[in-house]
Amino acid sequence: MIYSATQDTICAISTPPGTGGIAIIRVSGPDTFAICDRLFTSGKTVKTEDGGGDSYVVAQISETKKSERQRKKLADYHANKVIYGFIQCDGTLLDEVLITVFRAPHSFTGENTVEISCHGSIYIQQQILRLLIENGARTAQPGEFTQRAFLNGKMDLSQAEAVTDLIASTSAGMHKLAINQMRGGFSNELTQLRTQLLDLTSLIELELDFAEEEVEFADRTQLLALAENMQKRISCLTESFDVGNVVKNGIPVAIIGKPNTGKSTLLNTLLNEERAIVSEIPGTTRDTIEETLSIGSQLFRFIDTAGIRTHTNDNIEALGIQRTFEKAEKAAIILYLFDLTVEEDDLDTTIRWLQNFQKPFLIIGTKNDIAYRTPTQISDNILPVHISCKDPADIERIKSIILDFIQIPSFDSNDVIVTNIRHYESLCKALSAITCVIESLKNNLSGDLLSQDIRECTHHLGEITGEITTDDILQTIFSKFCIGK
Amino acid sequence: MIYSATQDTICAISTPPGTGGIAIIRVSGPDTFAICDRLFTSGKTVKTEDGGGDSYVVAQISETKKSERQRKKLADYHANKVIYGFIQCDGTLLDEVLITVFRAPHSFTGENTVEISCHGSIYIQQQILRLLIENGARTAQPGEFTQRAFLNGKMDLSQAEAVTDLIASTSAGMHKLAINQMRGGFSNELTQLRTQLLDLTSLIELELDFAEEEVEFADRTQLLALAENMQKRISCLTESFDVGNVVKNGIPVAIIGKPNTGKSTLLNTLLNEERAIVSEIPGTTRDTIEETLSIGSQLFRFIDTAGIRTHTNDNIEALGIQRTFEKAEKAAIILYLFDLTVEEDDLDTTIRWLQNFQKPFLIIGTKNDIAYRTPTQISDNILPVHISCKDPADIERIKSIILDFIQIPSFDSNDVIVTNIRHYESLCKALSAITCVIESLKNNLSGDLLSQDIRECTHHLGEITGEITTDDILQTIFSKFCIGK
Repeated sequence: MIYSATQDTICAISTPPGTGGIAIIRVSGPDTFAICDRLFTSGKTVKTEDGGGDSYVVAQISETKKSERQRKKLADYHANKVIYGFIQCDGTLLDEVLITVFRAPHSFTGENTVEISCHGSIYIQQQILRLLIENGARTAQPGEFTQRAFLNGKMDLSQAEAVTDLIASTSAGMHKLAINQMRGGFSNELTQLRTQLLDLTSLIELELDFAEEEVEFADRTQLLALAENMQKRISCLTESFDVGNVVKNGIPVAIIGKPNTGKSTLLNTLLNEERAIVSEIPGTTRDTIEETLSIGSQLFRFIDTAGIRTHTNDNIEALGIQRTFEKAEKAAIILYLFDLTVEEDDLDTTIRWLQNFQKPFLIIGTKNDIAYRTPTQISDNILPVHISCKDPADIERIKSIILDFIQIPSFDSNDVIVTNIRHYESLCKALSAITCVIESLKNNLSGDLLSQDIRECTHHLGEITGEITTDDILQTIFSKFCIGK
Repeated sequence: MIYSATQDTICAISTPPGTGGIAIIRVSGPDTFAICDRLFTSGKTVKTEDGGGDSYVVAQISETKKSERQRKKLADYHANKVIYGFIQCDGTLLDEVLITVFRAPHSFTGENTVEISCHGSIYIQQQILRLLIENGARTAQPGEFTQRAFLNGKMDLSQAEAVTDLIASTSAGMHKLAINQMRGGFSNELTQLRTQLLDLTSLIELELDFAEEEVEFADRTQLLALAENMQKRISCLTESFDVGNVVKNGIPVAIIGKPNTGKSTLLNTLLNEERAIVSEIPGTTRDTIEETLSIGSQLFRFIDTAGIRTHTNDNIEALGIQRTFEKAEKAAIILYLFDLTVEEDDLDTTIRWLQNFQKPFLIIGTKNDIAYRTPTQISDNILPVHISCKDPADIERIKSIILDFIQIPSFDSNDVIVTNIRHYESLCKALSAITCVIESLKNNLSGDLLSQDIRECTHHLGEITGEITTDDILQTIFSKFCIGK
């Protein structure tokens, strides 16, 4: 499918939102240079008498205005060149900026692109955006720069999707998967498989044109070998999704326990920041909070459960609340917290309840700094860990136990791992189609049935790399991007 | 005072913290190019067979390693040039980046500088920083890039301070003041005054050498005229601090009222985000929250007060809590909220209490969507405003009333306005010194007394622009900067 390049010019703040030393505003599209020329005036640094060196503040705006007719246009500069100057707004100076010029097709989007590097004030960032819009650009949709890179053939769809994974990566594992995918490791293999399949389909379809003559252009043995190889590869890829998913989204760890046992405090201390609101009032956490944290090079996803008030002292009833149960079900590791300052009446029953989940769990006695107690063995030789969230050594101990719990299949940096649910779904459909192909071949079914299944398989493989796509798919994919990328 | 340039190479993330499309890591110092060469490999875009255009992904790392000996060094590139390539980490690809080369003295710091533009993933940003540090750079202190710009004579101290004000600016007024100061409007005037004063001091001190001969090198009339002119200018500047302070920090608005009257909800709605935590439970706001918001082009600082539980129905007692009182005292505008769903028993008494503050106040009935009531006049013809925070029109109405309350003295963009407390304090000291000079001149006091006061005045003026400074002052100033600037 061929797309025509988009005709309008888009702009967005590409650096993280907020205040910083520098912010970058990116402009891309056919009118980029013309629009930026309207607000930007280049200026050279000049020697000043008193400054003892080159002054960063240059020609007066009024003087520059005089020579406006002679001033060099952005289009006249060399590509990949940084130009110093200033942006004016309603006749007054808005900011001193650096502008970088990129020329089509040698830019990220494949279009003429300008990056404006300004002081990272929110006000300045917004004013520059406003000026760009007033001068003919429009605000970019999320991921629209990358979408243009895809539409202009700079990358395929799975590479484009890897860009947002790369940006979101917070652990070594996630980063490795994303950068492999962005560099095309995944799509190269798919494209190869798909091309072989397409070649064979053409032959089969040729047969259909000569149906009455009963010729076989496509060697059935060769086709079967290819289909079986493909089935093997595709099922490898679908199986890799489990690993990919854990690496990308983190290993889920549920933090459960009665109200006011310090679940949020533990989560906050692990995260080292005040994400959850901690108070002395039981039941402060009204919603489930999920936070990711890298321990070692592995990402974990901590699930803090709602502290729910209970009027019973029965542990199981208190725990048996649907939500807590569901969290424990979904988690790979369970941390059960109890309050050392309160008499815990039935830890044994709790442990039997936890054992039903058949996953690693850890019993943690909290507030050890207030009510110090030596841990004693509970049923089945289980020894709780007593901690104080105020003691960094205790927190490190918890982290290290969690790390010991898990065994992530390690993966080679050259392995292709599926991390994207969209890819996974397409692969499952392709797998089911190729399995049909194999069945049909084994049963000597006719060419037209074969052809249909093969077409379906190539269709689903093509969806992943974007050779087959629709506006809807594109919109769904790129809407998950951040604005400015 | 002459400073020797710093000898080490510093690095920091210069874009706002967090995840975004792009992040910039800045490296500055004598070893910048050598350090970056160790982790960066430039790569040219090449045509690929299948990609249909230029591929963003280029030579394999392994191939590049072979030709490592021949590869071009960053020092060999033209200044202000953007180079595409990749950063390797432990033999694997970390990211595809753009590197911009700036050469001393034509850079922000005046030193050799490199800006690395990478994907805005937190992981990638941190890994690049780590690599830079492993290869010989060190993490920059807050404001250290700007400090180096000052030490290398690229800007004076008040200009350097304006950089951080510029970055923090969130309204047109703040921005205008900061950019004027950064461009030297303030320091030019101070330097001129100071130079005149220094010239005259030299003459007076020359007189002292010839004390027995009773000559007067410095014309006393001329000196008096100059001192009086200076007194006038300096007192203009100190007076401008009131305006500057309001523009810079925002006009304080106190939001007060009994618990659960929707103070946090109003604040959140005004700010259009969930900054304060809102719940159905009275007393959720445990700390005072201050948030700034631009209405029109004016900055306001909203103060949300702690919701404090009270067991009395006496309005004044409920309000009379020390903290609420203090907030109302400090504010320029008071918003008093009451809950329309609850019978408000004594608004008249509340109004009398509010009137004591002698500043504009607004009585707001909240939750109009739940308990709709037509506003009725209270004592002294005061008409409350009934609002629902769910109705954007109501919020706009509140904003417009607040805007009507204030009368900020407008200032011309060429006016020099003092916004910095350090400058204000130095100016006050300079003012008191110059006033002594005038007194001494009028009383015909001797040259040595005169000279001492004039020296004191020039000293304090010099503190502002950094001609007179100490390491302590520098540290205090630059520690307020964000890291990376």
